Amino acid sequence: MNFCSHCGHRVQFAIPDGDDRPRYLCEACGTIHYQNPRIVAGTLPVRGSKILLCRRAIPPRKGYWTLPAGFMENAETTVEAAARETQEEACADVSIHGLYTLINLPHINQVYMIFRADLDGGFDAGPESLEVALFEEHEIPWEELAFPTIERTLRHFYQDRLSDDYPLHISDITPEDRERYFGSA
Amino acid sequence: MNFCSHCGHRVQFAIPDGDDRPRYLCEACGTIHYQNPRIVAGTLPVRGSKILLCRRAIPPRKGYWTLPAGFMENAETTVEAAARETQEEACADVSIHGLYTLINLPHINQVYMIFRADLDGGFDAGPESLEVALFEEHEIPWEELAFPTIERTLRHFYQDRLSDDYPLHISDITPEDRERYFGSA
Ligand SMILES: [Zn+2]
Ligand SMILES: [Zn+2]
Repeated sequence: MNFCSHCGHRVQFAIPDGDDRPRYLCEACGTIHYQNPRIVAGTLPVRGSKILLCRRAIPPRKGYWTLPAGFMENAETTVEAAARETQEEACADVSIHGLYTLINLPHINQVYMIFRADLDGGFDAGPESLEVALFEEHEIPWEELAFPTIERTLRHFYQDRLSDDYPLHISDITPEDRERYFGSA
Repeated sequence: MNFCSHCGHRVQFAIPDGDDRPRYLCEACGTIHYQNPRIVAGTLPVRGSKILLCRRAIPPRKGYWTLPAGFMENAETTVEAAARETQEEACADVSIHGLYTLINLPHINQVYMIFRADLDGGFDAGPESLEVALFEEHEIPWEELAFPTIERTLRHFYQDRLSDDYPLHISDITPEDRERYFGSA
């Protein structure tokens, strides 16, 4: 951030009076420009023993497989965001159950929220997907998953499926987790 | 938003190519300025049969009672944000249990996440609180709570306490809910 989005003046990066961390400040109009984490909402769509994955048509991680998920928009709920992303990426309607994984990625200012869902009807590749397909557990392309959040959610699912009990899992992904996942490349 | 925070040029509000909703766009440098909901993280601090509330020293709803909660910051996790807000507003350390209420407020682009917590040690009014106190159920100032999210979380808690079972509650607050809560004032 270089300029004030309100008045166009150049901003400073300094600790405001009464605050404890630096913010982008505009001396001209007095606006403090707060920056906050973003929610990535998505679903784990299930049909019988299979789950639905999308192969990404866009960066980052183009060509890798993911659960349908994306940035929550203003004016929608988390459940609406998860359903919308599933419709956009997989052309699929889903019936959403509970929140299943809540994963913090503090180093990139994201919070993943993945909901378990039943896949209703058909599916197809949306504009951001190269292909969309259903996978049995032994068919999951573990080495070609797009993000550590996706791998972690799938691991929880196959573990929990043994007891047919799917509690909310809250966890964090650290920079070390990410490095381990993506390698040094 | 009037100006591009990257280059300082005046922005437009229009639908980008390949998108389906209007965004703030900069024709000069090509930046699309996305806007996303913010997370409000907090705790429901419990000690024995009592819960801790803070009376707000700042707008909005100055003088009204709330659970300790505030905007999640970049570079922290949801649990860290909830604990930090509890420390800031009530000078209290807490041991955080599970996520308890997840409440969407799509008309103001907020997502509340309140965690159940045990109150460890003492408490005191932080700079944003006029006073901080423990309440038995019959002492809760229902008519002087700051926000409908707080009332809803407390109602869930007293209901769930009857069975000592505290599942995650996901819900939305609509503009109609808000109007009912705040009245026509
Ligand atoms: Zn300004
Ligand atoms: Zn620009």
